[in-house]
Amino acid sequence: MNTQTQLVSGFHSIKELIKYSYSLVIKIYISNVRNDKRVSEITKLCQKYKIICELVDPITLNNISGHNNHQGFIAEINSPVFPSEKEIDSKLKDLITSRVLILDSIQDPRNLGACLRSALAFEFDAVIINKDGSAPVNEYVFKTSVGAILNLNIFYVTNLTRTITYLKKNGFWVIGLDGKGDGSIFSEKFSSKTALVLGSEGSGIRKLVKENCDNLLKIPISNKIESLNISVAAGIVMYELRKQHIN
Amino acid sequence: MNTQTQLVSGFHSIKELIKYSYSLVIKIYISNVRNDKRVSEITKLCQKYKIICELVDPITLNNISGHNNHQGFIAEINSPVFPSEKEIDSKLKDLITSRVLILDSIQDPRNLGACLRSALAFEFDAVIINKDGSAPVNEYVFKTSVGAILNLNIFYVTNLTRTITYLKKNGFWVIGLDGKGDGSIFSEKFSSKTALVLGSEGSGIRKLVKENCDNLLKIPISNKIESLNISVAAGIVMYELRKQHIN
Repeated sequence: MNTQTQLVSGFHSIKELIKYSYSLVIKIYISNVRNDKRVSEITKLCQKYKIICELVDPITLNNISGHNNHQGFIAEINSPVFPSEKEIDSKLKDLITSRVLILDSIQDPRNLGACLRSALAFEFDAVIINKDGSAPVNEYVFKTSVGAILNLNIFYVTNLTRTITYLKKNGFWVIGLDGKGDGSIFSEKFSSKTALVLGSEGSGIRKLVKENCDNLLKIPISNKIESLNISVAAGIVMYELRKQHIN
Repeated sequence: MNTQTQLVSGFHSIKELIKYSYSLVIKIYISNVRNDKRVSEITKLCQKYKIICELVDPITLNNISGHNNHQGFIAEINSPVFPSEKEIDSKLKDLITSRVLILDSIQDPRNLGACLRSALAFEFDAVIINKDGSAPVNEYVFKTSVGAILNLNIFYVTNLTRTITYLKKNGFWVIGLDGKGDGSIFSEKFSSKTALVLGSEGSGIRKLVKENCDNLLKIPISNKIESLNISVAAGIVMYELRKQHIN
């Protein structure tokens, strides 16, 4: 495996990967798993999309992956390539029409992956992530995104505030999700061009980024609990936005 | 530690635990963590709620918890006690007024925990879980629920179909969430007494349980992806139901 490739593990992730992003898959490795139905499902998909599929022993699979949490399935894929900082403005301009997700310093790979999965599900044009404070796109992000990462326009940027200013100049209304926000998502009517900003589980959106939002909204919840899981909160706001844009 | 107690680890979980369920906490152990702000926050909460707080060395903390993923904070608490099978009907009758969550065979502790966290956030009267096919309430469920588990009415039952029949007899409309459902949550008007049913990440709701639902709904998503994360999907439907019941 060279530096332009990466590994993805697990039955569900690999199934989605082949179905939705087969052109990126280089090779599938399967070890002698007990669930024959799963093996047959993956091998049939490999035949359909003409992907090389190799049966190996479990120890070899552990060696390839560096762990044993692969459920007997590993894929080697071409790593996704993200636009460079210089390309971002022009690429964003071509892409953005209605919905953008901005993730400020999400560090838990499972939360980041789940946010990306929801962004694809609710047809977001682009996802902007701050380069320095966020989880890198590693195998765990990939796995929890079930490959969504390959079908999204993802931009890693150095300066989120700069990108927010750029989006505002291009007609976007920028909404930050904040437990102490003034408005409630229960009654919000979203603009036809909306960028949603979400912060990290522990600290929320950073101060300067928050100050650059047009509006801060909260999801009203019981006073018996402080917050929702960040990927659940992100999914809810993306759902609401998508629903309003359809209706 | 005797069998009636259990451990909870991690800064955020323990913070929420003390704030919202302090009466269950027996003792807090803190090791020499670098983040003084966190230590001070927990010790102040312990003082406020008169909870014993002991400073121990990191090795002792690892020995108490059996792992090192505790961020320097461990709580010993009285284990939540769930009603026995015999008590369920009468207890349910007293409790249920508008919103019930039914979880069919959710096995990933993080997903189960996040579903419980959302159920408390959106003020569900009760959560029904099938005893045999679901994750037990272990430390990981506790951690991802950030203690929500202690403030919810949770019922572990042997036979979900039996409980669904009971709920229907008591005026509840039972909605299953299913990717192939006929209806869409975008246009659904929920009954004032609704029970939501969610199935496992891999297989969805089991056949017999599904057949006993009054209606199957889906969350409309892009055709570029097969499904949402189960705790995100659960959060979205609970949010929509809560919103409609308020408005």
